[in-house]
Amino acid sequence: MERIKPRTLSGFRDRLPGDSLQKERLIHQLTATFRAFGFAPIETPHLEYAETLIHQGGEEIKKEIYRFQDHGERDVALRFDLTVPLARFVSQHKNDLGLPFKRYAIANVFRGERAQAGRYREFTQCDFDCIGSTPLTTDAEIIQMIHASLLGIGIQNFTISINHRQLLDGLCAQHGLESHTQTILRIIDKLEKIGEEKVKEELQKAGVSKASATAILHFTQHQGFGFDFIEQAKPLCQNDSMAQSLESLREVLTLLESGGVDLSRIKIDFSIARGLGYYTGIVYETKLNDCPEMGSISSGGRYDNLTQTFSSEPMPGVGASIGLDRLLAALEKLGQTDSSQTPADVLIVTFDAALMPYAYAQAHQLRNAGINTETYPIADKLKKQLSYANRKGHRFAILIGEDEAKEQSVTLKNLESGEQHEKVPLDSAIEIIQTINKENTCA
Amino acid sequence: MERIKPRTLSGFRDRLPGDSLQKERLIHQLTATFRAFGFAPIETPHLEYAETLIHQGGEEIKKEIYRFQDHGERDVALRFDLTVPLARFVSQHKNDLGLPFKRYAIANVFRGERAQAGRYREFTQCDFDCIGSTPLTTDAEIIQMIHASLLGIGIQNFTISINHRQLLDGLCAQHGLESHTQTILRIIDKLEKIGEEKVKEELQKAGVSKASATAILHFTQHQGFGFDFIEQAKPLCQNDSMAQSLESLREVLTLLESGGVDLSRIKIDFSIARGLGYYTGIVYETKLNDCPEMGSISSGGRYDNLTQTFSSEPMPGVGASIGLDRLLAALEKLGQTDSSQTPADVLIVTFDAALMPYAYAQAHQLRNAGINTETYPIADKLKKQLSYANRKGHRFAILIGEDEAKEQSVTLKNLESGEQHEKVPLDSAIEIIQTINKENTCA
Repeated sequence: MERIKPRTLSGFRDRLPGDSLQKERLIHQLTATFRAFGFAPIETPHLEYAETLIHQGGEEIKKEIYRFQDHGERDVALRFDLTVPLARFVSQHKNDLGLPFKRYAIANVFRGERAQAGRYREFTQCDFDCIGSTPLTTDAEIIQMIHASLLGIGIQNFTISINHRQLLDGLCAQHGLESHTQTILRIIDKLEKIGEEKVKEELQKAGVSKASATAILHFTQHQGFGFDFIEQAKPLCQNDSMAQSLESLREVLTLLESGGVDLSRIKIDFSIARGLGYYTGIVYETKLNDCPEMGSISSGGRYDNLTQTFSSEPMPGVGASIGLDRLLAALEKLGQTDSSQTPADVLIVTFDAALMPYAYAQAHQLRNAGINTETYPIADKLKKQLSYANRKGHRFAILIGEDEAKEQSVTLKNLESGEQHEKVPLDSAIEIIQTINKENTCA
Repeated sequence: MERIKPRTLSGFRDRLPGDSLQKERLIHQLTATFRAFGFAPIETPHLEYAETLIHQGGEEIKKEIYRFQDHGERDVALRFDLTVPLARFVSQHKNDLGLPFKRYAIANVFRGERAQAGRYREFTQCDFDCIGSTPLTTDAEIIQMIHASLLGIGIQNFTISINHRQLLDGLCAQHGLESHTQTILRIIDKLEKIGEEKVKEELQKAGVSKASATAILHFTQHQGFGFDFIEQAKPLCQNDSMAQSLESLREVLTLLESGGVDLSRIKIDFSIARGLGYYTGIVYETKLNDCPEMGSISSGGRYDNLTQTFSSEPMPGVGASIGLDRLLAALEKLGQTDSSQTPADVLIVTFDAALMPYAYAQAHQLRNAGINTETYPIADKLKKQLSYANRKGHRFAILIGEDEAKEQSVTLKNLESGEQHEKVPLDSAIEIIQTINKENTCA
């Protein structure tokens, strides 16, 4: 028989148990936060008509998208994000959904980018959006949810940088550059990457005068915290569009503060432009103060024209996306991950195949008591079974030999402390495990 | 601007919030069961080298698989199940995993079957497998997990039918039909679908004598429960292979009983063949007694040669798959679903945009008390906001008007009973909600 080399495609990867447990824990915590805000899950297919996805996607997307003909010769593609499918979904089901519509989705997307370290062609996005609501309450709520999501997974030290797209629109208008706004925003978006001088150069290449380029750059360099910064920024906002945008930022700060957000984590930063064409209002990105080099781990903003591909009816929306893979990498870097490769607390170790029914009965009772319990299925040598537990990260072993079975007891071994309780009734073992588990949870 | 009709591909579907909440609940319960047995999650890519998937797949799979060339002109395909990727995964990572290896995976797979009612081209499978263990303890454990999974989601009335492939192999051998075994098994697998007469006909067409066809058919019609059935079946098992297989079934029953499985749910059924070529030992399928027409909602068995595509080293495995979509359809049919379309208990209803900061402060405190709380983001008319709550299924509304804000209070409305608590402190409202929630949980 011809053999095939077992391998994944370049840019794709497997997740082994330790990694997957970490990811499931994170998804569980994020889901809890999204639900706490009343956001409901939805699911769309991985595969869509190509036209649905590429219509608004631009050239870069067309290059990266996985696109092919299906069995019915339809032109289909794998989704490259969760936002375009949301626009399609809302347009298609709006009569069944009711507005405002608040949804989250945690799912995989595909981009055939050039493979590079830490970048994958299949990755997981966590999106949450509210469709159909114009007031700033919704902008504030999405920011509040980023804040709550990070706290929920145990990250405290982060900064959400916010800005208003119309502040930048107004700035361009002030310099008579309305028609260049998109280009200018795209260049400003590169500030952090290419530096001040290059940005100035590129602005001038795009037809902005040296004086305007300097003024625009100067403006975008303002950043600060809280209501004090808003006051300080007032003189900088000289036309209506700019003044109104600043006022909107103030209103959002007020709502955030009421909603329990620590404003020392909210930076107003006039350089945040979010390159994507579809943003129309307040925009934000989020960095971990302890690993800023990771870039933004959650970005978002208001987009008022997202469904225009499908419908002439305007449909305002606000949403954000959390990059799960980046977040996992960050947690690892911060040492906030757990090395266990098993969801089980206990491994049942049996010395003799004939004792397996007794072992299964003990396992059943442990599970009934809410203790995740794995049975080692083979009556292997003690050493081999304990080394399995050690490798996987079980915290307890329950040893079952002839004596234990005869006396209707078990021997409990705490694999962390080495402490051993010999031939105790199972109920006592359960009590000991539960007490230690409780102590660990509270610690 | 040219508009595009928002639509999903034929055979694909969206899940709206009510449906998705149901699915998430089910996945949560199944995951809890898999973890209770110490099975850990893994994740493999949706996309694989086509050769990885089709090597063992057979003609049907080749017709149904979504296969195309990627940007690097690699021959790639979307996975059509979770078992072949597991074989690839285990072969690739065996040094990092350690054996026995117990994993679960809940993920989507793709088959371009002809679209028909209730059949989708993208659907969700829940697989759990143990690789690297030969003893029957593992066969018993997988069956035990099917049993626990169904109890865990609130289904009591079901039957797991089990058989041993070598019982049928032995039967064929007894009639001198060793070389026809695969063909005979495939025909017997159709018994329920095409009936006794047709099976007899097909067996004869396949070269089985009339007498052997009658005898084989007669044998496969035996079924029954528990150790009594094993005793009764003894005279039917006349060669070593058959006698050993029956003994294995007895051993599994012993382990299941020790593991808390109600043996009245375990039927031994000599007709269960599981058409798939790769099974080599004990096999099973599961039907809900209240909707048997749904077919098997969980099937599995022992496969000892799964990794042979990738490695000459033999690697025994036992596993089962739960069809999530079928299970969801069954729960709906049994009336065991919940009509709520929101994960939030409470909707905050605000009468005046100026009160939004106060509303956000109340929402924050409710969430801190563990109560999922949605804010209606617009100061719409009361009627509109309550009709939104009614449509989504919130159980409480917290009304916030000028008086409430002035008195630092809220008005709580129980949307199920209509009962209203006017201008009470938020703490009292929280207490009332928690008390009612607790009553509902215990009911």
